[in-house]
Amino acid sequence: MVEEGEQSVTLDLLREKMVDFANERGWGQFHSPRNLLLAMVVEVGELSEIFQWKGEVARGLPDWKDEERIHLGEELSDVLLYLVQLSDTCGIDLGKAALRKIQLNAQKYPPNPCNNLSEKTEEEAAAARADGDDDSAVVAGSG
Amino acid sequence: MVEEGEQSVTLDLLREKMVDFANERGWGQFHSPRNLLLAMVVEVGELSEIFQWKGEVARGLPDWKDEERIHLGEELSDVLLYLVQLSDTCGIDLGKAALRKIQLNAQKYPPNPCNNLSEKTEEEAAAARADGDDDSAVVAGSG
Amino acid sequence: MVEEGEQSVTLDLLREKMVDFANERGWGQFHSPRNLLLAMVVEVGELSEIFQWKGEVARGLPDWKDEERIHLGEELSDVLLYLVQLSDTCGIDLGKAALRKIQLNAQKYPPNPCNNLSEKTEEEAAAARADGDDDSAVVAGSG
Amino acid sequence: MVEEGEQSVTLDLLREKMVDFANERGWGQFHSPRNLLLAMVVEVGELSEIFQWKGEVARGLPDWKDEERIHLGEELSDVLLYLVQLSDTCGIDLGKAALRKIQLNAQKYPPNPCNNLSEKTEEEAAAARADGDDDSAVVAGSG
Repeated sequence: MVEEGEQSVTLDLLREKMVDFANERGWGQFHSPRNLLLAMVVEVGELSEIFQWKGEVARGLPDWKDEERIHLGEELSDVLLYLVQLSDTCGIDLGKAALRKIQLNAQKYPPNPCNNLSEKTEEEAAAARADGDDDSAVVAGSG
Repeated sequence: MVEEGEQSVTLDLLREKMVDFANERGWGQFHSPRNLLLAMVVEVGELSEIFQWKGEVARGLPDWKDEERIHLGEELSDVLLYLVQLSDTCGIDLGKAALRKIQLNAQKYPPNPCNNLSEKTEEEAAAARADGDDDSAVVAGSG
Repeated sequence: MVEEGEQSVTLDLLREKMVDFANERGWGQFHSPRNLLLAMVVEVGELSEIFQWKGEVARGLPDWKDEERIHLGEELSDVLLYLVQLSDTCGIDLGKAALRKIQLNAQKYPPNPCNNLSEKTEEEAAAARADGDDDSAVVAGSG
Repeated sequence: MVEEGEQSVTLDLLREKMVDFANERGWGQFHSPRNLLLAMVVEVGELSEIFQWKGEVARGLPDWKDEERIHLGEELSDVLLYLVQLSDTCGIDLGKAALRKIQLNAQKYPPNPCNNLSEKTEEEAAAARADGDDDSAVVAGSG
């Protein structure tokens, strides 16, 4: 059983809520993998719309109005909710996959003792990316 | 305190792990909102790559090889991990925002008694979307 | 008949070349609208990859190496070539549609006599976008 | 000098029109590379919105209404117009780059004598993609 609460919002809770939501409205028929993928691309576009004309944006969005933060939270949520539904429709346990991915990333990129990204490491990251999906996934995880 | 486990992967757990991961490597300096947004767009592209030439794909991916499913899980995870980092860098509580968004969607689209999406409802969704971001967010949540 | 040359690269020339390219390789069978759309999303991701960790980038890319500029040109081209193929597969004359769209944008946004975007105008643009697709298209055209 | 007309819409003509459009409105100040890239991502989302719930779509869009085709033409144009502006802001000659890219693709993928994509070739394409950006660009160009 999954509890609800700010500190414990699990991917399973969101998955369950979205499955119920779709079933109560008879919308599951539209939830094929590519439909949901394209729906997520739409939401990524709406999320990008918030940032498109702002130039660089500072961490924490110091100058943003409350309504802008609320709107941003809604668009971030829309991407997440479609990602959760896409994973579910594909039979992928997203939480389990994410934990595994973080471990893969940690193996690929051991912590930097100097605790800063040297130029060399940056080139390695670019090179790793050029090696293809697995590596790019690592770069992805490494932020 | 956040426990770890398949059934209880919380967004906070992923957020904490990604913050630690970046700090241990000195990569937080690169995690500005728009850098992370573009990094997420890159991962959405890599996720789309898996589906691009397949035509329609059946729910549950019946004919996919194990390595394809594993790769898919990695790309879905990359999108999620950047989304979590983007939210964190913006100071948005993604789990809280997602629960709120689901409630907004439920208010906007009450369950359909006939339990199927009538053409009228479909047009309403299109109309709602045309009303702008808030409504499009609703359509988003409505799947 | 379409001539070739730097100053006269037409959308029709690119369309013809891509149709021939696909036919010579028997790849037309894969060029359904949604396959090509997803392929374009993949390329948008690869284009974004070039910009993802750079923070703000100056016009003209003053500090970029030649190989970076060449790579950028290739990724910009990949997006364009899929966009051309998607339009062709959908039976849309992209060049004609683009000229029409520019006219629509000009009608929606008459030239600013003060020749600068006042904050008010910026809000109007945001408002216009919130009015839905047609207006967002206008905002799109308005850059 | 660039002529105007259905058969001869050149990328330079669109570039010139968009430069004039922005100058007449004082909007060039917002046209930094990453602003324009994100604006293009927004339009890719709006283009995807048209296809998101349709399942597979047949070439030529046989069942689509005229207003749907017109809307599609507008969204395809929005992506193109931002792509043209992004290339211009980066100092890339998009038409020249696209012709060069097609040549690179042709060298990488010689015409298939059997004129159909064998499974082997498909794996080669996947492998090529895994080799990194240059190759993925080839796969991109190869459709």
